[in-house]
Amino acid sequence: MLIQGRKGACAVSRREPVIGVVGLGYVGLAYALGFSMYGFRVVGVDIDGERVKSIKNGLVNGFSGEVLLKVVQDGSLKVSTSYEVLGDADVVFITVNTPTKHDGSQDLSQVVSALESLAKVWRDTHFDYRIIVLKSTVLPGTTRALAEYARHELGLPIPDRLGFAHSPEFLRADRALEDVLRPFRVVVGGVDERSTGYIAGLFRDFYRRVGYEPPIYTVSLEEAELVKYASNVFLAMKTVYGNLIGLICRQIDNCDAWRVMSIVGLDPRIGRSHILPGMPYGGPCLIKDILAFGRFMLEKTGLDFVKRIHDYNELVIEKVTEHLDSELSGLQGRKIVVLGVSYKPGSPDIKDSPSIKLCEKLLSKNAIVYIHDVNREAVEKAKAILSGVIALETTEKLKEVDAVIVTLGYNEYKLIPPDVYDNALVIDMTGEITYEKAHRFYTSNKLKTI
Amino acid sequence: MLIQGRKGACAVSRREPVIGVVGLGYVGLAYALGFSMYGFRVVGVDIDGERVKSIKNGLVNGFSGEVLLKVVQDGSLKVSTSYEVLGDADVVFITVNTPTKHDGSQDLSQVVSALESLAKVWRDTHFDYRIIVLKSTVLPGTTRALAEYARHELGLPIPDRLGFAHSPEFLRADRALEDVLRPFRVVVGGVDERSTGYIAGLFRDFYRRVGYEPPIYTVSLEEAELVKYASNVFLAMKTVYGNLIGLICRQIDNCDAWRVMSIVGLDPRIGRSHILPGMPYGGPCLIKDILAFGRFMLEKTGLDFVKRIHDYNELVIEKVTEHLDSELSGLQGRKIVVLGVSYKPGSPDIKDSPSIKLCEKLLSKNAIVYIHDVNREAVEKAKAILSGVIALETTEKLKEVDAVIVTLGYNEYKLIPPDVYDNALVIDMTGEITYEKAHRFYTSNKLKTI
Repeated sequence: MLIQGRKGACAVSRREPVIGVVGLGYVGLAYALGFSMYGFRVVGVDIDGERVKSIKNGLVNGFSGEVLLKVVQDGSLKVSTSYEVLGDADVVFITVNTPTKHDGSQDLSQVVSALESLAKVWRDTHFDYRIIVLKSTVLPGTTRALAEYARHELGLPIPDRLGFAHSPEFLRADRALEDVLRPFRVVVGGVDERSTGYIAGLFRDFYRRVGYEPPIYTVSLEEAELVKYASNVFLAMKTVYGNLIGLICRQIDNCDAWRVMSIVGLDPRIGRSHILPGMPYGGPCLIKDILAFGRFMLEKTGLDFVKRIHDYNELVIEKVTEHLDSELSGLQGRKIVVLGVSYKPGSPDIKDSPSIKLCEKLLSKNAIVYIHDVNREAVEKAKAILSGVIALETTEKLKEVDAVIVTLGYNEYKLIPPDVYDNALVIDMTGEITYEKAHRFYTSNKLKTI
Repeated sequence: MLIQGRKGACAVSRREPVIGVVGLGYVGLAYALGFSMYGFRVVGVDIDGERVKSIKNGLVNGFSGEVLLKVVQDGSLKVSTSYEVLGDADVVFITVNTPTKHDGSQDLSQVVSALESLAKVWRDTHFDYRIIVLKSTVLPGTTRALAEYARHELGLPIPDRLGFAHSPEFLRADRALEDVLRPFRVVVGGVDERSTGYIAGLFRDFYRRVGYEPPIYTVSLEEAELVKYASNVFLAMKTVYGNLIGLICRQIDNCDAWRVMSIVGLDPRIGRSHILPGMPYGGPCLIKDILAFGRFMLEKTGLDFVKRIHDYNELVIEKVTEHLDSELSGLQGRKIVVLGVSYKPGSPDIKDSPSIKLCEKLLSKNAIVYIHDVNREAVEKAKAILSGVIALETTEKLKEVDAVIVTLGYNEYKLIPPDVYDNALVIDMTGEITYEKAHRFYTSNKLKTI
């Protein structure tokens, strides 16, 4: 039966499900690619026509054009702006965004809209059993509520003929495919046992083909949702912790927080990741998760723990600004270069980037702010939202300024020859600049000997 | 020269320093033993005559009697209540306690007294170069201040002929010798380069003999002091984090915080250590370090981060008490058993034990509190400080009570047969009890299905 199914004219069978993906951002595309590379037929939808075109042309930031073109051209991956392609999908992964609304709550409209479109396409289709898997990050309890909505309001046959599950993603934007193919762990929570078992089985089959066996955890819907937040918030807290130790080092003698925290990180119960001081955490995923979970924790337990972690995080921008203000005797009219505007090296993304917050702060104090980033797209985006900022084409302009702040550890910044800085005050937030006159931000101001 | 020195009648030479240890608690004794086991002549002082006698008799909790007796009897380790034995010591490790004073500041009187006694013994002694190493945990800046005190007030020839250094200890009380012989890392900060180099060299020599090469970090005095606090406070924060996720799980559906946090801990950037929910952190070392560092951080930076972490930690005792109060409809006259009073399984130590705080809380609400611990010494100590508490000889008495709270994951508690609990409400703080009617504290109260 199995072999026949695979060989037969109709590729669809219970043993060889057609994979649907809604939302082709880095998460959706990475899963779509992963499944299609390993023998699954994949259909993907994104309402953004430009995105769909880029995928078809193999031109997507962070993904290999060669791999993309191969699966698109051999028909393993079919992408479209129309939900019609999902007509015969057996498993549909929803990977659309869940941004934060102005009131701080989670905006689920994209997920709801995806469910409505799916319901429409599937309305007159016969199927024995299909399943929807939410990959989008949502607060505990949300997937169950969405399943109830889909059942009662959209008439989808959940859970009898339509399974519903949540499986959090832990992908890094710049290595999404790699993280799909080599995850630390896979977490699956379904609305019922059949849903959970189906998706766990699908992943087991997928990873068998990949030749890699991650642990697969089957949990409740809410546990699956919570694992994602509990992981991200912990890493955010680790970042804040390193920075706070850094702020202490500024106030005592003979201390370099990078040295201290590298030694602390040697303890295997702690680990070096995320704990070295630097800029505050930021970026499009982390900030929204922290804000949503902070609000959730406050609501459920009355505790402001996560909210406070976030406040301590944001404080660093204040401290850097205060430091500059004091060193330059005021910021009004001072020429300050911010090296690095993206939220991390190499990324074109500036949403919730701490460097952007720093620029805004400096601009609000009437400083003249110059920006540079090795990623040109990041600079263009920054120019668009920071009114009055001046983009530097090269780092050679650094001679004419009062201060330079290095926020991202690009090799290009480590290697800028000392004479480029001239007499500017150079502040290093990364701990990686070798220029001897650079002032490492998280270090003591005083050296003391007996 | 070297070989001659080792063979000669006089064992003391620059290449074979005599090691002195002041304070023979688990830290001092572990170093004294470690050095004496690997060919160093060691002299140790403790003002507690009983402790010295126990060491001579090989009867010290947490240390092998055989090993102790061997080094005492072959003369490698000489212990005494008199500082006179330190007369010819080349390197003196000070390992005395630095408890918290009533006002929350660090009580350095034992360190100061050790320095005074040393100064007296060494007053009329000629030596070319000696060195004092502080192992006691002290706040950044303290060792330098102590060195200055010893130089100016006690007339010790620092730094010319007497080096001064800090080298934090990371020993677990129940595995102190093991941790001395197999540390993750060794950290040494000296008052000058000679001090730092001398002690780093001594440790290098020592570990070469042990046949193990830990990384040895030479840092500033203040960095050495800070590494210890930054490590301990991080682990405390990790514990608090796991418990807070646990408190959230209590408020949402279908969640078991142990399951969630075990999966979260699989991420190598996070790690499973310290992150599983349980009782609040506690114990004689951690609490004092957290309080001291919390105060220090507030003083130096105006930030209450560590203080808040500690408040969130203590909150768990409130939450457990509230839960019991609600489940038993009041605590007045209720018979409640607390299984485990030590601060960790197997330890006789109850100082700053969270279970003791729980007992106090319950007693203050007029509950009738029964206690049990597998470690009998812990029970005796608890009886001495908890007025009105009743010690159980066996766990068989559990039938007659309203509630049982398991605070420590002793195997003996995991294996108590279900019928012993009878109809009592059983609350598991450890996540390790298999009794099916036990209520895991950090879990949802509600199960929900679609």
